[in-house]
Amino acid sequence: MNNILNNIIYLDNAATAKPNEQALNEFNRIEKNFWGNPSSLHEMGFLAEEEIKKAKKTIAKKLNANINSVYFTSGGTESNNTAILGAVKKTKHIGKHIVTTQFEHSSVLNPIKKLESEGYSVTYLSPESKGYISREQILNAVKKDTCLVSVMAVNNETGALNEVFGILKDIKKISPDCFFHSDCIQAFLKVGNILKAEDFDLISVSGHKIGAVKGIGALIVNKEIPPLLLGGGQQKGMRSGTVPAGLICSFAKAAEVFGKNTNAENTVNNGCKETKSLDYINHINHIYNYCLEQLKSHNYHINYIGPTSKYIINFSVKNIKSETMLHFLESKGIYVSSGSACSKGKKSNVLKALNLSDDYIDSALRISFCNETAKEDIDKLILSLEEAETVLVKIKR
Amino acid sequence: MNNILNNIIYLDNAATAKPNEQALNEFNRIEKNFWGNPSSLHEMGFLAEEEIKKAKKTIAKKLNANINSVYFTSGGTESNNTAILGAVKKTKHIGKHIVTTQFEHSSVLNPIKKLESEGYSVTYLSPESKGYISREQILNAVKKDTCLVSVMAVNNETGALNEVFGILKDIKKISPDCFFHSDCIQAFLKVGNILKAEDFDLISVSGHKIGAVKGIGALIVNKEIPPLLLGGGQQKGMRSGTVPAGLICSFAKAAEVFGKNTNAENTVNNGCKETKSLDYINHINHIYNYCLEQLKSHNYHINYIGPTSKYIINFSVKNIKSETMLHFLESKGIYVSSGSACSKGKKSNVLKALNLSDDYIDSALRISFCNETAKEDIDKLILSLEEAETVLVKIKR
Repeated sequence: MNNILNNIIYLDNAATAKPNEQALNEFNRIEKNFWGNPSSLHEMGFLAEEEIKKAKKTIAKKLNANINSVYFTSGGTESNNTAILGAVKKTKHIGKHIVTTQFEHSSVLNPIKKLESEGYSVTYLSPESKGYISREQILNAVKKDTCLVSVMAVNNETGALNEVFGILKDIKKISPDCFFHSDCIQAFLKVGNILKAEDFDLISVSGHKIGAVKGIGALIVNKEIPPLLLGGGQQKGMRSGTVPAGLICSFAKAAEVFGKNTNAENTVNNGCKETKSLDYINHINHIYNYCLEQLKSHNYHINYIGPTSKYIINFSVKNIKSETMLHFLESKGIYVSSGSACSKGKKSNVLKALNLSDDYIDSALRISFCNETAKEDIDKLILSLEEAETVLVKIKR
Repeated sequence: MNNILNNIIYLDNAATAKPNEQALNEFNRIEKNFWGNPSSLHEMGFLAEEEIKKAKKTIAKKLNANINSVYFTSGGTESNNTAILGAVKKTKHIGKHIVTTQFEHSSVLNPIKKLESEGYSVTYLSPESKGYISREQILNAVKKDTCLVSVMAVNNETGALNEVFGILKDIKKISPDCFFHSDCIQAFLKVGNILKAEDFDLISVSGHKIGAVKGIGALIVNKEIPPLLLGGGQQKGMRSGTVPAGLICSFAKAAEVFGKNTNAENTVNNGCKETKSLDYINHINHIYNYCLEQLKSHNYHINYIGPTSKYIINFSVKNIKSETMLHFLESKGIYVSSGSACSKGKKSNVLKALNLSDDYIDSALRISFCNETAKEDIDKLILSLEEAETVLVKIKR
């Protein structure tokens, strides 16, 4: 057992969130009582399958999706890979043009780069100085031979909210059989009610970003694609492999209770403080605005301000390298990220896409909130940033 | 909560095993204390990664593998798909000939059938009347242009142990750059000490067949292949996606405690009786032999006898359809399979490969043991089979 989880301030929720207690309990309930193989023909299989159906309903409801469009995967990466590679297999008759952005997650960018190396032409939209992708940018890029548009809803490093909603019909007017996919991993449950399945052909979501255990995600398939994994034909052939009822039900429970606090006390609970707020969107707006004000009043450079999920702020404390600051904050029990947790050590392609100067890129920090983040957490962060400025060795230039 | 888990006799362990209590506890320990993203640069990432390293070591040890050859996947299907599709991408210079068997799991057969449709030529070895694949069959099939040999170690429906051990060098003598892959999902920990990583280029194993929670598997990669999932470059780029420490450590714990009973009492514990036996291989040999004797003495047709894992018996009670018998046994609290749990409703390609008559195929039952299966479980099974024969309506022919 480690002790680091007492009294920590965890501001790295975009990398992964603390597993929600109810979601973990749900996992245990399934693994203890409904551990049959859902494909088994006997009662134990049937009972596990019933639990999966209920979970599917919950996930579908949260996205206003048809229950039959929900397929479970091992996580966001598999969902993104399945969507992209599946969509292009289905659209060979249309052409080989793909529209995406410069600041997608690597699980979108890398499959697309692979397709590019195989002869696809790709338009990489740039967020430019405004920091997000506009509906006009997307629609202007779509051509008659565009087979796939893949634009994330919320950027994982800046929180930028792209204008991906309500444009499906307009895309189809230009290329009727084209697929519109969105990596909604950072957006799921974090952008109010604007995220709806009907706006896309394919949507990727992930469990562990919202408090489920790790190893589970979903792909919403409104328009049929071939599967990535081939095998026993589980999940109507769309995703073979023994269906992990425990993971799925943990995911659904996390989605169900997201933002609902059962503990009315303001007590420390493994790094995330519980608040009384039931309206988590209001609460997170408040935290976001408060944090932004505080950072600005200390003259820290905010790397992106604009339409956003409100769960992420990216800023720079000039002259202190990201990693140096990250470890200083860590010594104070404050956990932040120097960029996406997926690209350990690499210079952020997201921040490069924003045309930020190297000074800001090298010192960029991402803080990402959970619904339990409190004002006092922000206050402690600000105090520690101030302290860092006085004690840390400046970068020699 | 359901009550079906009290006093059941679960003989469907090849479909999925009951999650081991220690493996489930291990999952909870990680999800409660080491839930950081292993890719995070701060301590919480580092601590999670340390736990993963320990787990990797355990899995490596159980296969006598190099720790650096172990990659975690979402399960057997992903491992098999990654191995097969990766191997052929790496061997385009050799040729397009694949050797496999008629009775592989569908997560091997289906990717290979896809390759066949794309121009690969495939030799499907038949187990024929002897029921297993011999080393001579494999070696006779390999040609200079063979790029992949994929033969499972233990068949999932009959338990047949194929002669896949000790032939790697001989395969390479014929086709030096060819990959030798084995689906060892039913063999892992269940064939004594004969399964060793050095005998293969690629090995697929799965967690939930040995008492881990569902949603985790591993691929042993002794000879490099390109990845199936592309993204953040986790697991040295071999398998992108947030690394699920909880699932991985649950898998390692299940492997570590497999066959080790902590409970010395012969008490009923959610469907599997605990035994005092520490030497689980001896115990399972005993159970297998006892069950076989009993089935034979009642004139039930054993569909496969030969080299086997001893965890699986496939037999037929002629004139009673598999599904009818399955549901009759279920009513007695005995859970068996009418074939692989993956191929719900379809006629078994495995049994067809054995050249069994339709009578036997239509009435085939698979029983599969866990280390806690007791003699009394077999006695109750036999009694119920006898009862079924007297009360069930015979098939009209």
